[in-house]
Amino acid sequence: MEKTKVGIVGVGTVGCGVARLLVEHGDRTARHAGRTLWLEKGVVRDMNKLRDYEMPAGVITQRLDDILENKEISVVAMLVGGLEPARTYTLKLLDAGKDVVTANKALLAEHGGELFDRARQLGRCIAFEAAVAGGIPIIANISQCLSANQILSLQGILNGTSNFIVTQMDEKGWEYDRALKEAQRLGYAESDPTMDVDGSDAAQKLAILAHLAFGARIHWKEIPRVGIDTLDIQDIRFAGELGYRIKLLACARLTDGGLELSVAPTLIRSGRPLAEVRRNYNAINVVGDAVGDLFFHGQGAGQMPTASAVVADMIDVAVGRAKITFQTLELWSAKEATVALRPFDDLPGRYYLRFLVVDEPGVLAQITSILGQHQISIASVIQHEPEPNSASPWLPLVIMTHEAPEGAARGAVERIRDLPVVRGSSVRMRVMEEPKL
Amino acid sequence: MEKTKVGIVGVGTVGCGVARLLVEHGDRTARHAGRTLWLEKGVVRDMNKLRDYEMPAGVITQRLDDILENKEISVVAMLVGGLEPARTYTLKLLDAGKDVVTANKALLAEHGGELFDRARQLGRCIAFEAAVAGGIPIIANISQCLSANQILSLQGILNGTSNFIVTQMDEKGWEYDRALKEAQRLGYAESDPTMDVDGSDAAQKLAILAHLAFGARIHWKEIPRVGIDTLDIQDIRFAGELGYRIKLLACARLTDGGLELSVAPTLIRSGRPLAEVRRNYNAINVVGDAVGDLFFHGQGAGQMPTASAVVADMIDVAVGRAKITFQTLELWSAKEATVALRPFDDLPGRYYLRFLVVDEPGVLAQITSILGQHQISIASVIQHEPEPNSASPWLPLVIMTHEAPEGAARGAVERIRDLPVVRGSSVRMRVMEEPKL
Repeated sequence: MEKTKVGIVGVGTVGCGVARLLVEHGDRTARHAGRTLWLEKGVVRDMNKLRDYEMPAGVITQRLDDILENKEISVVAMLVGGLEPARTYTLKLLDAGKDVVTANKALLAEHGGELFDRARQLGRCIAFEAAVAGGIPIIANISQCLSANQILSLQGILNGTSNFIVTQMDEKGWEYDRALKEAQRLGYAESDPTMDVDGSDAAQKLAILAHLAFGARIHWKEIPRVGIDTLDIQDIRFAGELGYRIKLLACARLTDGGLELSVAPTLIRSGRPLAEVRRNYNAINVVGDAVGDLFFHGQGAGQMPTASAVVADMIDVAVGRAKITFQTLELWSAKEATVALRPFDDLPGRYYLRFLVVDEPGVLAQITSILGQHQISIASVIQHEPEPNSASPWLPLVIMTHEAPEGAARGAVERIRDLPVVRGSSVRMRVMEEPKL
Repeated sequence: MEKTKVGIVGVGTVGCGVARLLVEHGDRTARHAGRTLWLEKGVVRDMNKLRDYEMPAGVITQRLDDILENKEISVVAMLVGGLEPARTYTLKLLDAGKDVVTANKALLAEHGGELFDRARQLGRCIAFEAAVAGGIPIIANISQCLSANQILSLQGILNGTSNFIVTQMDEKGWEYDRALKEAQRLGYAESDPTMDVDGSDAAQKLAILAHLAFGARIHWKEIPRVGIDTLDIQDIRFAGELGYRIKLLACARLTDGGLELSVAPTLIRSGRPLAEVRRNYNAINVVGDAVGDLFFHGQGAGQMPTASAVVADMIDVAVGRAKITFQTLELWSAKEATVALRPFDDLPGRYYLRFLVVDEPGVLAQITSILGQHQISIASVIQHEPEPNSASPWLPLVIMTHEAPEGAARGAVERIRDLPVVRGSSVRMRVMEEPKL
């Protein structure tokens, strides 16, 4: 049987999973690729580090040159995280004539243009299924399987760490800090979880999907984003009372006014598939104008789900499919964007608002009158009676609005916050639009 | 821009959708294929039939030869249903040097071996994404995106007609006959719905998936199958009382004893994603040993969802990806099966049983004693008090069992049915195994 020699750069958790699939399950790659994917070299920083998968003798090396100089190695999984030296390694691999498979979404979101241009110039390809939603093959589905469609919208739970934390808060009634600690203890959150919990990771993934699905040429930092790191358990409780769950939702929607993009904690009606995504799972709802709505749910991270995506890409590269896809898609190309970002202030949405108000007559009137002045109408209100024997004159007031533009909602909330009867910080979250079935 | 000339054979509902995507949305195929897919000819039986999409002048023809003899047409969507003349047309198209895209699952399930062998001999390819689950790209996902996995199980709602009928029964409390009539009125069921409601259509689709996922070389008629055509509304009610919904479920599971395959109405715990699939939607849960569980949900039929899959295949064929996939997969090849079917009697499962029993002491003891003799233990029982003023001495008795082999369950039910205290037909349905998370 024909043999394609492959390499791995960066043999951490995912790299060990990839090595295991290649070495222990060569029969699969043989069956699905019609050839053996032969793991020739795995480049590591530290030869003596304990790994959960030990590679065959002679494979492991500290020298990237062992791959660069080996003309027989044609496909390389570049699994080093972060921006540097990942960017430099990727460029070197391309320059050395290798096709590259990566799971590094930060690298693509930041340097996609440069890397893809270089690959195109050199006649090489980059495959990156594992960069978004881990084991869910959303890249292949959008770029190949739905190619007859104009994608109309994407709504995704793309950050497993955030979803794990939010699920713990919801199910166990924990505050954010406690849920984060538990996520760290179980390995679902890193010791510095910033990029996960502040929405950056989800925004990077959404930027990649927006490139693919809409031909948008946006940088991930252009996407308005809010994380779950300021989420208050009482909002999860009020949302539950109203029949909703809160999820960190990444959204893209094509409208006449341009492409809407956002990442933010969002209320989703309980029972809707996206509301029921638990723990570290990811899920994506895609609407295409021909296919209608498609929903994907699966493991968004973790060793073997990510390795599953990396090895599928390595097979696609080895058999030649990835090269065709790469050439036809013109990813991050110099071509002009085919769609403009819609100004965030114009984005219509329904809102969940929470204020801490003083318990006296006329307060609701003052607040609803400001909302009315901003053309925002009210769908429902929760104001509970004060606890018996409560000494505090302050009570939470929760309002669900009908649809209003982002700018109007923000303006109204700013004015309400300045009222003498309102204290402290207010909360404003979007409510996911219900699909029209 | 380069042009790939394509044809359609059979311009019915789906064919009109395909023509519309090709002609009105040529920009998409250009963007995703890097070339125009140019609709050169559409072959119809009746030139004068009214179609919901009128093709450009000169495209429509009654002569298949207009495609066969046109050397420039390289990709053909063969959308004629049934076995003949679909089989002959497909062979002629392959012989004439065309690559073929089809949505005809019956054709593949019956003649896949012959057609795929011929295509291989001639260096052509056959793409068939639309043959299973309509707009859900399950074929590409299993055969490409999950190629690093050993698939462990597939559970799917693959027949939209059955699901529509069952949803109507569940939500509106209708009997089967009324729900079927409504489905026919709305176009979700054909005037002869036999293949849909007796489980044959789902078995054909499951056979195709089992070829792809497990290398099984089985004929669809080897799959034990029960349809929804004998489903009684009272079982939907009892299932609801127990916290379950009934769905026509197609299952494949790899076990040490071989491959388990079945199509049957099955109880699924409410709230599980497969239980919540409504109306004419399809859904599939796939478990791979690396990726874990993946869930897909979308439109399983209909003009544009099916056309979405057909045109994606045409693009894949035009750019050369489909040919690679076809060559590497060895579908329906002469190669020996890599897995054997597990004898149906060995299949373990939990069961829902319903008997009509006489309302007198000792009946439950007689029944449970027979179950005990067959090593079947009981999980729960429903027996309601008789309606006040009811003159009938007969009452339904519902039993949910723990896990037992199919053969034991069938044997026990046959013995129970013969008891003098039991009357009429009994009901036995499988309960879907809960995933271990």
